[in-house]
Amino acid sequence: MFPEYDIIVVGAGHAGCEAAAAAAKMGSKVLLITMNMNTIAQMSCNPAMGGVAKGQIVREVDALGGMSGIVTDKTMIQFRMLNLSKGPAMWSPRAQSDRMRFAEEWRLTLEQSENLDFWQDMVDNLLVSRGKVAGVRTRMGLEIKSKAVVLTNGTFLNGVIHIGEKQFGGGRAAERAATGITEQLIQLGFESGRMKTGTPPRVDGRSLDYSRMEEQRGDENPSKFSYTDTQPLTKQRSCYITYTSTEVHEILKTGFEQSPMFKGRIQGLGPRYCPSIEDKINRFADKDRHQIFVEPEGWNTVEIYVNGFSSSLPENVQFKALRKIAGFENAKMFRPGYAIEYDFFPPTQLNLTLETKVVENLYFAGQINGTTGYEEAACQGLMAGINAHNKVHEKEPFVLKRSEAYIGVLIDDLVNKGTEEPYRMFTSRAEHRILLRQDNADIRLTPLGYKLGLASQERLEKVEKKISETKEVIAYLNNKAVEPEEVNETLLALGSAPISEKAKAANLLRRPNIEVSHLTQAVPVLDHYLSKYVPDSIEQASIAIKYEHYIQKENQQAAKMEELENYVIKERLDYKSMPALSKEAREKLIKINPETIGQASRISGVSPADISILMVYLGK
Amino acid sequence: MFPEYDIIVVGAGHAGCEAAAAAAKMGSKVLLITMNMNTIAQMSCNPAMGGVAKGQIVREVDALGGMSGIVTDKTMIQFRMLNLSKGPAMWSPRAQSDRMRFAEEWRLTLEQSENLDFWQDMVDNLLVSRGKVAGVRTRMGLEIKSKAVVLTNGTFLNGVIHIGEKQFGGGRAAERAATGITEQLIQLGFESGRMKTGTPPRVDGRSLDYSRMEEQRGDENPSKFSYTDTQPLTKQRSCYITYTSTEVHEILKTGFEQSPMFKGRIQGLGPRYCPSIEDKINRFADKDRHQIFVEPEGWNTVEIYVNGFSSSLPENVQFKALRKIAGFENAKMFRPGYAIEYDFFPPTQLNLTLETKVVENLYFAGQINGTTGYEEAACQGLMAGINAHNKVHEKEPFVLKRSEAYIGVLIDDLVNKGTEEPYRMFTSRAEHRILLRQDNADIRLTPLGYKLGLASQERLEKVEKKISETKEVIAYLNNKAVEPEEVNETLLALGSAPISEKAKAANLLRRPNIEVSHLTQAVPVLDHYLSKYVPDSIEQASIAIKYEHYIQKENQQAAKMEELENYVIKERLDYKSMPALSKEAREKLIKINPETIGQASRISGVSPADISILMVYLGK
Repeated sequence: MFPEYDIIVVGAGHAGCEAAAAAAKMGSKVLLITMNMNTIAQMSCNPAMGGVAKGQIVREVDALGGMSGIVTDKTMIQFRMLNLSKGPAMWSPRAQSDRMRFAEEWRLTLEQSENLDFWQDMVDNLLVSRGKVAGVRTRMGLEIKSKAVVLTNGTFLNGVIHIGEKQFGGGRAAERAATGITEQLIQLGFESGRMKTGTPPRVDGRSLDYSRMEEQRGDENPSKFSYTDTQPLTKQRSCYITYTSTEVHEILKTGFEQSPMFKGRIQGLGPRYCPSIEDKINRFADKDRHQIFVEPEGWNTVEIYVNGFSSSLPENVQFKALRKIAGFENAKMFRPGYAIEYDFFPPTQLNLTLETKVVENLYFAGQINGTTGYEEAACQGLMAGINAHNKVHEKEPFVLKRSEAYIGVLIDDLVNKGTEEPYRMFTSRAEHRILLRQDNADIRLTPLGYKLGLASQERLEKVEKKISETKEVIAYLNNKAVEPEEVNETLLALGSAPISEKAKAANLLRRPNIEVSHLTQAVPVLDHYLSKYVPDSIEQASIAIKYEHYIQKENQQAAKMEELENYVIKERLDYKSMPALSKEAREKLIKINPETIGQASRISGVSPADISILMVYLGK
Repeated sequence: MFPEYDIIVVGAGHAGCEAAAAAAKMGSKVLLITMNMNTIAQMSCNPAMGGVAKGQIVREVDALGGMSGIVTDKTMIQFRMLNLSKGPAMWSPRAQSDRMRFAEEWRLTLEQSENLDFWQDMVDNLLVSRGKVAGVRTRMGLEIKSKAVVLTNGTFLNGVIHIGEKQFGGGRAAERAATGITEQLIQLGFESGRMKTGTPPRVDGRSLDYSRMEEQRGDENPSKFSYTDTQPLTKQRSCYITYTSTEVHEILKTGFEQSPMFKGRIQGLGPRYCPSIEDKINRFADKDRHQIFVEPEGWNTVEIYVNGFSSSLPENVQFKALRKIAGFENAKMFRPGYAIEYDFFPPTQLNLTLETKVVENLYFAGQINGTTGYEEAACQGLMAGINAHNKVHEKEPFVLKRSEAYIGVLIDDLVNKGTEEPYRMFTSRAEHRILLRQDNADIRLTPLGYKLGLASQERLEKVEKKISETKEVIAYLNNKAVEPEEVNETLLALGSAPISEKAKAANLLRRPNIEVSHLTQAVPVLDHYLSKYVPDSIEQASIAIKYEHYIQKENQQAAKMEELENYVIKERLDYKSMPALSKEAREKLIKINPETIGQASRISGVSPADISILMVYLGK
């Protein structure tokens, strides 16, 4: 009934969609298997993409030729660039999405992918032959052959939903769990663990009093995610901000006796940086209020996502507490929040390609690896899809360095450090974050995406133009002198010291408050010259000039790291026979068996001293 | 957590959506409970509304103030008026729908309904107190109070899906079944039964060769369903027609050994007039091909519905057979067809208001009553919603006569005759079908809908204008004489006998081939006069003139029926003590206990002789 596929992707969430789209675009024959073709690309949690560090990931996915950025741009209802008051390394795009449209757009996008077939069914077994995956077996009893398999099961593996003292099997509200895979993987030698995540109640927007909340509008001149020619929004929907209170907290506390988390019914750890409301009032007992983001679920729907109020307390406790929040006095719920526990596989069992160490040609992406977040899932899916394609076509593995992309940081962290709680990306995880900006993801990655056969020629040409234009603009600004009488009025107005003689434009630009736009307003000839360049190139040049010093330093450090990075540990070292290593380092090195010194250096518990010892053993 | 509602509607398919929207619009406080807010108004089977007799029902629903017509108009991708070559009683509107948009539009429509709340949960129990329903209990363990409950469970009650020898619990592909309600209703004294329905495979449109099929375009000047100001389509998508062959049939026969229907694993009866392909080749062994309608599922999706190929044979047999159909040589399936068995409650347990006889204020609508079809479900939901509202607000029951609407025919058939197999509407079921046309549903029903508080003032005014204009046009055409030299050329061209002296326009119009448009083209003054009327009024007048005789006769018969209809059997008659009745009639009369002579006369097994006997007993 089925041909042999190159790649079978199991699951059609953010990870599965990117994996399937990428592998198919690169030329693999791909089958995407989903339990329900009507729920492809569901946003199970909040209707938003991006945010701090996460927005950078979406830009990287887009730059490589992934689709999340394009789908988001086409279906967003609000766009904001977060952290604009900070340095450009912190600028983070974030979009509020129309949940229904997002799912629809992804589905239509996948349907337009040549080489991509669909099958609605549940995979409950892998076909494995001599340590290599050979396909899947489904609940319908079918065996479907493939050269590689990408598992992206999300929260569905033995998923259990908790609301107060009640629990139901389920992969998501109203959807059933997937069984069979975990048990088989354990038999094959995998370790598994349990994690927990949660979601807040959904409420009826018609029942809220927005006059009691703060409005949060989208940006006045909204940007977007994709480097392609998607259009920025011309109208937007607002979000709102409100707060819990001590009264809300007191009511929530009445449910603690029935809390599945506090009473130990949930074993898995939850996402530390996206805690439930009960967790927050428990951990931060001195805080008398917490912020609640009131997020619309789409252009037209009245459904509202109560961001910040995730809970697994009994539904009546959630309800009573909710109604004490300002603006929620008459709130009507569509459904309560809940917690969900599911199986994951500690990601130290993976190679940097996201292929498992135990079963060849088997790839894991998304929550199955212990991560949380759509963006984290999407980028893993993309990388798994790329690497599965490359593997079955006997091409080189595709691994991104920590200095190249947040994606590189994420996968390196997962594979080398593992994670005990749902892993989420932060800018602080990236040591080279001044290099990994949302404005230069295309410069960093599109040439690589093009080489892979993923990013189009058109994309490449656009980036090449941006690179050459940036150079020209930098050269011009470094060279162009402006006169005191041209700029002093502007400088004074901006609180910056006037100049007494000619100065290079670049030097003025290095001053904290001075932007290119100030200079072009003051100096017509400069304005005239720059008007032939696209705004992205001018922004890029401006950042390069302003942060020249930091960027240079970071590049040097990255180069040094790379030397270590590239120092391959060729043979399996006998760490047991190295008494000089610390006990913890020895254990971890045996467990993870790093491929390079760089990788070894980032294992938690392996100190710089341990690395020096290793270098001695290696004769360096 | 919840207020006491007037009405709880359980299920959000076509029946549940109409019930909730109607009751809320009339002013009831309504709660709609659905297992999944993302699957509101799913078209579980083919992506189409209307068709012969069914299209008339949608027009009636619309005329009363229901929403199915408006939602369909806004989301259709093709419109055709079927049977235009036959008399106007047979004209039947039919739309191909965009499945995703249809569901989205219904959801947004419901969200705009004042008085309508939503709750995502599964109802597994009714609260019943002293023979009267008092609310529901849910899977989440909540008790929600209400004065009335409308059950619209579709195929979810103990649903079991069959594909070859495999079976799974489920209410629809990938969705779980609902349990608990049947068992409770049986305990309360209800009889239940099992029915079966089925659905064909879905395939990838990219894998089909349309050049080997016949194109079926939409109408050149497409009409629409709603009498409101929805817009007709300006572009449309085509469907395609192809055929099975003896080769296809031979392959299908190889699966008969594993057929759940032929091997007795499915007990329930399936819809006779929408049989599975295996049923067709079994029952019509001499036919060497069957028609297959290739229907797109939306504007943009590649998913195709293979109408006419419903099957529960093993998926590989479906697949092999499918590939032998012309144009399907390389077809890729998204999922196989399947059969589903589910519980229904013989509808003789209902009053004409759709309230159950056993439990007061409990209403059933849709497949739970043994019907099949979106339109049949929608109109029952509408009527149940109206009647539940009227009951809890102590208003008169709302029952439509058989001479007033297909809806009246349907409910009267169900309640009085019951059904053993999924009941579907046909024009032949309506004895007064010349009165029950798609063009006059507004005239028949909008004044009633307005009185109910369901149809708007605006709708009423539009209908009143249509009625008065129609009268004016009829009077004018009856009176207006045309000269031979004005029309003879046209008459000859149309193959109609020329006139030798002046003739009334109406008389010419009574000729089979002559339409108003022919006369207006030939006689400028007529054209000028009629141009001030809306096309609907002219069409209405034309039909009234052309079919005057039939309509009059039908009206007389209906009046006669009504006399009987209205003869109320006040006390419970002791049918047992009427030996003159036939045995079957006695049994049926005891079982159904009809409210009127008219109702008694339509019970299957009750003959005109039995009715005469009854009249004697009643002293008539």
